[in-house]
Amino acid sequence: MLIQLKDNCNDKDFQEIVSVVKSLGYKPSEVVTQYGRYVICVGSAEVDIRIIGNLNGIKDVHVVADQSKLVSRLWKVQTTEIPLGDGIVISRDHLTIGMGPCSIEDEEQVIRIVGFLKENGVALMRGGVYKPRSSPYSFRGHGLEGLKFFYKHCQANGIKVVSEVMQVSQVEEMHDYIDIYQVGTRNSQNFNLLDELGKVNKPVLLKRGMSSTLQELLASAEYIFSNGNEKVILCERGIRTYETAYRNTLDLNAVPYLKEKSHLPVFVDPSHGVGVRAYVEPMALAAVMAGADGLLMEIHEVPERAVSDGDQSLNLTEARRCITRIRETVRLRDSLYDLTPYQATDPDH
Amino acid sequence: MLIQLKDNCNDKDFQEIVSVVKSLGYKPSEVVTQYGRYVICVGSAEVDIRIIGNLNGIKDVHVVADQSKLVSRLWKVQTTEIPLGDGIVISRDHLTIGMGPCSIEDEEQVIRIVGFLKENGVALMRGGVYKPRSSPYSFRGHGLEGLKFFYKHCQANGIKVVSEVMQVSQVEEMHDYIDIYQVGTRNSQNFNLLDELGKVNKPVLLKRGMSSTLQELLASAEYIFSNGNEKVILCERGIRTYETAYRNTLDLNAVPYLKEKSHLPVFVDPSHGVGVRAYVEPMALAAVMAGADGLLMEIHEVPERAVSDGDQSLNLTEARRCITRIRETVRLRDSLYDLTPYQATDPDH
Amino acid sequence: MLIQLKDNCNDKDFQEIVSVVKSLGYKPSEVVTQYGRYVICVGSAEVDIRIIGNLNGIKDVHVVADQSKLVSRLWKVQTTEIPLGDGIVISRDHLTIGMGPCSIEDEEQVIRIVGFLKENGVALMRGGVYKPRSSPYSFRGHGLEGLKFFYKHCQANGIKVVSEVMQVSQVEEMHDYIDIYQVGTRNSQNFNLLDELGKVNKPVLLKRGMSSTLQELLASAEYIFSNGNEKVILCERGIRTYETAYRNTLDLNAVPYLKEKSHLPVFVDPSHGVGVRAYVEPMALAAVMAGADGLLMEIHEVPERAVSDGDQSLNLTEARRCITRIRETVRLRDSLYDLTPYQATDPDH
Amino acid sequence: MLIQLKDNCNDKDFQEIVSVVKSLGYKPSEVVTQYGRYVICVGSAEVDIRIIGNLNGIKDVHVVADQSKLVSRLWKVQTTEIPLGDGIVISRDHLTIGMGPCSIEDEEQVIRIVGFLKENGVALMRGGVYKPRSSPYSFRGHGLEGLKFFYKHCQANGIKVVSEVMQVSQVEEMHDYIDIYQVGTRNSQNFNLLDELGKVNKPVLLKRGMSSTLQELLASAEYIFSNGNEKVILCERGIRTYETAYRNTLDLNAVPYLKEKSHLPVFVDPSHGVGVRAYVEPMALAAVMAGADGLLMEIHEVPERAVSDGDQSLNLTEARRCITRIRETVRLRDSLYDLTPYQATDPDH
Repeated sequence: MLIQLKDNCNDKDFQEIVSVVKSLGYKPSEVVTQYGRYVICVGSAEVDIRIIGNLNGIKDVHVVADQSKLVSRLWKVQTTEIPLGDGIVISRDHLTIGMGPCSIEDEEQVIRIVGFLKENGVALMRGGVYKPRSSPYSFRGHGLEGLKFFYKHCQANGIKVVSEVMQVSQVEEMHDYIDIYQVGTRNSQNFNLLDELGKVNKPVLLKRGMSSTLQELLASAEYIFSNGNEKVILCERGIRTYETAYRNTLDLNAVPYLKEKSHLPVFVDPSHGVGVRAYVEPMALAAVMAGADGLLMEIHEVPERAVSDGDQSLNLTEARRCITRIRETVRLRDSLYDLTPYQATDPDH
Repeated sequence: MLIQLKDNCNDKDFQEIVSVVKSLGYKPSEVVTQYGRYVICVGSAEVDIRIIGNLNGIKDVHVVADQSKLVSRLWKVQTTEIPLGDGIVISRDHLTIGMGPCSIEDEEQVIRIVGFLKENGVALMRGGVYKPRSSPYSFRGHGLEGLKFFYKHCQANGIKVVSEVMQVSQVEEMHDYIDIYQVGTRNSQNFNLLDELGKVNKPVLLKRGMSSTLQELLASAEYIFSNGNEKVILCERGIRTYETAYRNTLDLNAVPYLKEKSHLPVFVDPSHGVGVRAYVEPMALAAVMAGADGLLMEIHEVPERAVSDGDQSLNLTEARRCITRIRETVRLRDSLYDLTPYQATDPDH
Repeated sequence: MLIQLKDNCNDKDFQEIVSVVKSLGYKPSEVVTQYGRYVICVGSAEVDIRIIGNLNGIKDVHVVADQSKLVSRLWKVQTTEIPLGDGIVISRDHLTIGMGPCSIEDEEQVIRIVGFLKENGVALMRGGVYKPRSSPYSFRGHGLEGLKFFYKHCQANGIKVVSEVMQVSQVEEMHDYIDIYQVGTRNSQNFNLLDELGKVNKPVLLKRGMSSTLQELLASAEYIFSNGNEKVILCERGIRTYETAYRNTLDLNAVPYLKEKSHLPVFVDPSHGVGVRAYVEPMALAAVMAGADGLLMEIHEVPERAVSDGDQSLNLTEARRCITRIRETVRLRDSLYDLTPYQATDPDH
Repeated sequence: MLIQLKDNCNDKDFQEIVSVVKSLGYKPSEVVTQYGRYVICVGSAEVDIRIIGNLNGIKDVHVVADQSKLVSRLWKVQTTEIPLGDGIVISRDHLTIGMGPCSIEDEEQVIRIVGFLKENGVALMRGGVYKPRSSPYSFRGHGLEGLKFFYKHCQANGIKVVSEVMQVSQVEEMHDYIDIYQVGTRNSQNFNLLDELGKVNKPVLLKRGMSSTLQELLASAEYIFSNGNEKVILCERGIRTYETAYRNTLDLNAVPYLKEKSHLPVFVDPSHGVGVRAYVEPMALAAVMAGADGLLMEIHEVPERAVSDGDQSLNLTEARRCITRIRETVRLRDSLYDLTPYQATDPDH
């Protein structure tokens, strides 16, 4: 059960609500976000929700049988829109492309990639400055200094920045130089980090863990939301399976599933999802038709010389062509569907 | 190494070729198919293929480092075309849709589905008469009698039949009532069955095993081909992973991979691949953009009453809309690519 | 629900039983085996089994909620004993060791291995004459001729033979030269083969499919049993996972699970389960403590020269030491447990 | 390549070593631990190590082709011993049992469990005070206050404490109340946390990630070691597979593999590994025979009332019996092997 409180819900109203919820056998948790105030009620008793609906201070009450409540589509039918500023909005109506190198290598690189993105109308740049690396002896990124020059050039050109945060202490450090925090696959269940990201008013792109179920992904999103931050983007990036022909197995089934279960926007990262340069474009276009709200892709001027992930990065010629094709595919999708794909498929589902 | 023999290669030429191949440290196997005669040479020595190219009776010699030789694209660049008769051809240029119920339930059902397919221009009907079922107490299909009425109504309407063969003895039984033999996921490495299907002159649609690697799928196709049958279609149908949110994990990465490695046409079965009715259409469209040459989908007049797989079958209204959308997506794909998707992505790959 | 019929149950009694079962909303299937006659009732209605227990011709009635009925421990508490002749019995009380080469290579090899087994008191020899190979160009075994000399030397020395059967037609061919049919991992859901093996009166060792769930393994065993053959042995041999450090992931959890759910004996194949020679012995001993009733292991006089699976075969020195250690471990296990391990752990479970 | 420096290696010697290493095409990293000083050299050139061995300040040079150097057995043949104080030592020669509840629930519980452990001679108690929970609304542990009373009662009775650390800031907080830091499966690749744990002089028990390869586990251990802490314990705790019959798939293959590849002690957690109470004991005994150096097990006075993981916790009667059986199994293992199991199996490996 999820209770939306009115703005003018006062302490007395609130205590009464909590007390009624408890008397019904539910455990209430208060949640305050940028946009609203909620009481999340966990329990399994059968309840006539009108008992609660009639209390003072309540805007609406929803039965949400899903394990994760705040991120569920059961109480919020429209896909969440996330404004990034400068008129750039992540939304169902407008597929977002995010591109950039795996690691930010140097300032010149940033300048050239920013130029490329601007020229091609791409509004979001990705790039890592804190790199999770299996071996302690590998290059681990340029850190905060890298982020500063990365952000500076993007901001000057109206391009938004998404970059990975790896630990609690970086949340504050990165805050002024970032538009979207990215949580990487290895931190998808780093609950302390998720708690902390729930306390800032910046969007968070949450990647699925390497072997996370989608229920776990939604529960991780619930962590961020229940700590106060509604601006969460889910991201499918390939899972670990027995198949060794490619780096990961991109699970596009996840897209219609997440779109049905949650109101959060869903991105796909075909670069990590397949890990082979020649297959990235077809998988990006497939992701569009599966219903993705955004794509995250690795590009590099000379992939062969990239400090990491060169095997899966498109060069700029390939990237330009891919952008065109993504847009044509989105245009087709828009012409086929008024609603989101999964809804259109089966109106009675 | 793969040697194509000339039609007029005589016994003496052939013995000479075999003897040279052996002297170079390779193990030769002769393969005779509907379309040609080959010597497959397994070994790892470095060889100057001109030594062989100059022998009598040889049409061409190819270095094929891939484990599976005959199905490799390294010696045959164009995607194989498989004519089904009546002008129907499985090919790169024309995406084939195959639809029908999981199990053939009765003759009336066949008549109605055939009518639907004809009306919608679908040239291939699927339907099982031998059903692999986990439990010995479940319905196991109508067998040969079912196949006969299934085939009769399809043939009368110019529709081709694809149906699962489960054991060696059925290959001959089914021969006169089938256009494409289907090998199911549980028989994908039933090597005796593959051997036998290599000896008939009818196409074989080979599904990927539930946890087969793509190398294993290609090796299974090589079994059929090396026994004499070049008409093999590969089919991705979802793999088994840890994720329990859907029946299987449809692995669309497999499509560009198989298209690059093999000249055989590649189908996708989104119905089994995801197993949830509302997600079948988006996954079908995604498969098109990933590069599929054909789609195999389950439909049923009243999915809720299907004897098997109702949860993943589209009803006829959904199927009609889906066919339209598939065709629009194919039209887009054709407009974006002159060549196959994976080739266009990276000309230097 | 599982009904055991009396020997003297006549036609009239039987018809009455079937009719009552149907009237209760259950679907009955008659099963006749070497040892008894049963009616398996599939359905989900709540039934007072005394209604059935009072009918004529009935020996006993059991509620068996498990999906697979005949192989369930819910109606048969003691582990099944399978006599092989000459006083050799597969049973809970006496761990059976089966050893031999992956492929039977030649008659001299058989003679030497038989000598080794006799000297070390090992009563079961394994060895493949029909080999499932991924590539059609690999050695596929000596076939029936190989089986004949394999069997001849074993029989002459009181050693029993277990060997893989790959297709229906081989069941009869192999019948006179075999003591236990082995169903390999790739045929674990080859239902036609299982049906056929249900019709012979020889034990069947059923390997778990490469990615079969244990429920599927039990359902495959139910196929054999429900066709008339109660002499089924289950075998864990490693599953396919993402881990590439070894050939398969030996799932020893399967042992206590299968021992609890089924009355069938459970074997473990540590050779395929790990696929690395140096790890085979510790995994064999671990399997004993996990509760295995038997072990199947690959040995070879010169593993480095084996035509297949040399990497996982013990040489004879290693095998001798391993046999001693297995026996010491079994002795410890017997001293710790009166009952099967899983029962002793938790009497109230 | 791994270079061990002498205690008296001075700055000049060191600079010379670094300079020679670089000139050979290797990238050197200095590592200083509690016990020694090393230069880790990453590269792939062929080198005659005598060139380095002759330099001043060098104790020994080892070719270590493994990806992870410091944790490799290639330079350190004996299993690392980790003293915990009060004469308690984790070592090859003496299997360590650690037991306790999943979560520390209250002080009375700690007192009773400590009493049980003391009575049964168990020297290590486990128990969580920071709990990683999928849902943000679940109980997340008593935190530092819980750890304090947990530690107080253990210390008073000569029992050592192992408890999970979830984030960097807790490393210092927990330092004075802990004997072994535990890194949970979800943090197995939380590289910042691993870095931090490398800077303290307390042992770290590192659990394998839910879907980590063993190479990744070793690389995570290398993070801790290369930051200065040699006291690392590896722990297998079950991996995620397609099988749903139990919570995880305990991968005992990992034990002989890790024992061969690394000199670090290897623990097994059968409680999480199988997740079913009745199967915990057989899997614990199997782990002993597979070669484990320690076992971590969940116990609870009334498992049915545990706040978490009751399904996999032994009650005290079961635990007492299990301890006895573990010790008998260890006694057998010691009598069979002079060396570690894997070495004894194949002296020429």
